[in-house]
Amino acid sequence: MSIAEELRKVLGDQATIITDTAVLPSYSRDQSQIAKNGTPAAVLLAKNESEIAAALKFAHANAIPVVARGAGSGLSGGANAVDGSIVISLEKMNRIIEIDPTNLIARVEPGVINLELDKEVSQFSLAYLPDPASREWSTIGGNVATNAGGMCCVKYGVTSHHVRAIRMVTADGNVVALGSALKKSVTNLDLLHLIVGSEGTLGIITEITVALAVRPKPATTLIATFASIEEAMRAVPELVALAPSMLEVVDATTLRAVEEWKPLGFEGVGTVLLMQSDESPDICAKGVQIAEKHGAIDATYSDDPKDSADLIQVRKLAYPALERKGAALLDDVCVPISQISNLVTAVEKIASESGLLIGIFGHAGDGNMHPTIVYDHGDADAEFKAVAAFNQIIKVAQDLGGTASGEHGIGSIKVESALRESGEKIIELQRAIKKVFDPKGILNPGKKIP
Amino acid sequence: MSIAEELRKVLGDQATIITDTAVLPSYSRDQSQIAKNGTPAAVLLAKNESEIAAALKFAHANAIPVVARGAGSGLSGGANAVDGSIVISLEKMNRIIEIDPTNLIARVEPGVINLELDKEVSQFSLAYLPDPASREWSTIGGNVATNAGGMCCVKYGVTSHHVRAIRMVTADGNVVALGSALKKSVTNLDLLHLIVGSEGTLGIITEITVALAVRPKPATTLIATFASIEEAMRAVPELVALAPSMLEVVDATTLRAVEEWKPLGFEGVGTVLLMQSDESPDICAKGVQIAEKHGAIDATYSDDPKDSADLIQVRKLAYPALERKGAALLDDVCVPISQISNLVTAVEKIASESGLLIGIFGHAGDGNMHPTIVYDHGDADAEFKAVAAFNQIIKVAQDLGGTASGEHGIGSIKVESALRESGEKIIELQRAIKKVFDPKGILNPGKKIP
Repeated sequence: MSIAEELRKVLGDQATIITDTAVLPSYSRDQSQIAKNGTPAAVLLAKNESEIAAALKFAHANAIPVVARGAGSGLSGGANAVDGSIVISLEKMNRIIEIDPTNLIARVEPGVINLELDKEVSQFSLAYLPDPASREWSTIGGNVATNAGGMCCVKYGVTSHHVRAIRMVTADGNVVALGSALKKSVTNLDLLHLIVGSEGTLGIITEITVALAVRPKPATTLIATFASIEEAMRAVPELVALAPSMLEVVDATTLRAVEEWKPLGFEGVGTVLLMQSDESPDICAKGVQIAEKHGAIDATYSDDPKDSADLIQVRKLAYPALERKGAALLDDVCVPISQISNLVTAVEKIASESGLLIGIFGHAGDGNMHPTIVYDHGDADAEFKAVAAFNQIIKVAQDLGGTASGEHGIGSIKVESALRESGEKIIELQRAIKKVFDPKGILNPGKKIP
Repeated sequence: MSIAEELRKVLGDQATIITDTAVLPSYSRDQSQIAKNGTPAAVLLAKNESEIAAALKFAHANAIPVVARGAGSGLSGGANAVDGSIVISLEKMNRIIEIDPTNLIARVEPGVINLELDKEVSQFSLAYLPDPASREWSTIGGNVATNAGGMCCVKYGVTSHHVRAIRMVTADGNVVALGSALKKSVTNLDLLHLIVGSEGTLGIITEITVALAVRPKPATTLIATFASIEEAMRAVPELVALAPSMLEVVDATTLRAVEEWKPLGFEGVGTVLLMQSDESPDICAKGVQIAEKHGAIDATYSDDPKDSADLIQVRKLAYPALERKGAALLDDVCVPISQISNLVTAVEKIASESGLLIGIFGHAGDGNMHPTIVYDHGDADAEFKAVAAFNQIIKVAQDLGGTASGEHGIGSIKVESALRESGEKIIELQRAIKKVFDPKGILNPGKKIP
């Protein structure tokens, strides 16, 4: 019997198991362009925790690899299938189980779309704060598995700060509840945060309890233009000290790409800084003074929601403007904010030496930058050079005291970079932890842990 | 050769090793009244990481138990010595290594006193936010080891939210660096938060990188009195929705003890709620309206710092007022905020059935309550009843969806409670993790993990 047939026998007729070779490819990859993928033996569109537990018991007994996936919006190959694996898609488990406005928590299935939860809780004047760029289509489960970031992290922290508890199926098909819905509990070792960001290598999350926040006030938006990245970055520490709810940067290369496509009036501008404050317009007024002190060409702000949306257009267009010029390979590194301008300078050097177009934009307030390498579609030589630049940028970031991934995850494409950064002792500890949760190594093999 | 003599041989003459039997007792216990302790073979007043590494290599090779301690201000016996152990005191490792206002971090040795770090960073208009009641004398290392709470958690979270990275000596004497000083890094499994709150069972922390925050504005303080705990608690969810930076409650029993000692005008009052906002006085003005809507006898606020200090007097006096009436056994449980008044009612029943005086105060905004059991000093029968009430309160909290410890830790006194709450599977996982870090079980044996 094939793996799919055996799985059918284990799960029964009501289970949705896909083996159609025309459909399998769409469950075999995430959005990473450079990650390899294999062909799964079967895809289970899981309906509930019991199906997942039964599938894992079967996979564990037979040492079959299992890859979990949410919306497949990852950028590091973390959800890519390996040959002969069972892919478990969580997209159908998309129920908001409970919203508890008294205790400021919500309990959801992993397939709930991030923005949909936020919309639902907004009726109680609450918010689910983590805001990855993918929030309109990525799932909370995927966000938790990758410890997703976003723009609000500068003030509100990353996904892990907003996760209270999970239910999870372990590699051998047992169900465990980790963490506590309470705001404070020190009763157990913090196993929960070991799972957050583990990219499906330690278990499959079946339920998540998240913290909700009082819905912040509508933001006031500041925009400041500078002749150079150095001047802009000199303003950043003082802007960070205003506790902004967003602080983004767009570099000259990216601005040129935007202007070529949809002119917004940034011709000849070296760098744009965007800041939002959800506290008071005064904060942005102070921000204007700081920007001007550091040599801004122009700095202004608005507390009108329509104007705010216009001002941040340039950041929203950054990636699509680069993408329309070719294949766009989006990197994700994080450096100390004091090193951002050194990173940008180093990336510009890599661009000029390799002849590649590399635009840089990202989260200036926490040093998490997205150098984006553009190369010709289908040109194998250019792709090879792009991948080399991608890895070179990671090395530069690491040498500046930074890290291989700020928010996209390690997946399969940054495993070597993780090894370089962390060293043998930390890798050994991770392998030992992996063994505790997944002794046979069936969960997302080859990902995350070198 | 004795353990102390061997340790001396390993560490050399410059090491400070205490074996004086008159001094050992002061390094053998924390502040828990009911936790047992043993007699250590030696106390090492560690001066640096190398001494700790060498001591652990020696202890590991010889399977000698090792107990780390900071200021010894714990309340669960977590720092209590076991017989024949080496106690490693971190109190002399109290250097603030670096304050980096640009990247909003500080790097400290574990023996730095919490409030001293906050004072140092205040000159940059920054704050180290975690504020356990012990912050004037407890150490950052101890705070991290117990994942200490405090009053500001309702807005700013517990210690773990403010820890970025640590250096740690593992049981076998190796040094590892866990976490990242960066605001965002998803390169490794989150081993860091496994250590935060592990109470010295997985390694000995030798350096900590903490996140600093923009110093909040001086707080405005609200005080509201109610006839009953039920009325007060009905106001709490709406007050929490104002995002207060403090939200505390003091019950009738505690108020009577305060009035007997230092009359503040709360005679006949059933419950006091205290709230602070570091955003704007308007928030407290809204709080007054909410309190009045829910039947407050009286509600008022002040943004004058002197008045604020007067208003929170009653909370500061809560524990000492109970303590002067006898031996005070401070419990620490956390329940959903919607269950606080049920907890208080249940504790009142335990008090009346046992004939014990039990005052309750705590952090209303996150459900973390401190029922405090008063009994006669030196009365063994009364102490037995007090311990029984202590454990009964934990069970009640657990049955209300709560937890055995919100912020004080499990230490030795709540190990059975942790087992009841977590169940075998979670305990097994914790034991397996413990084995990864400490295969011989030498680190703080008998604590935290059942």
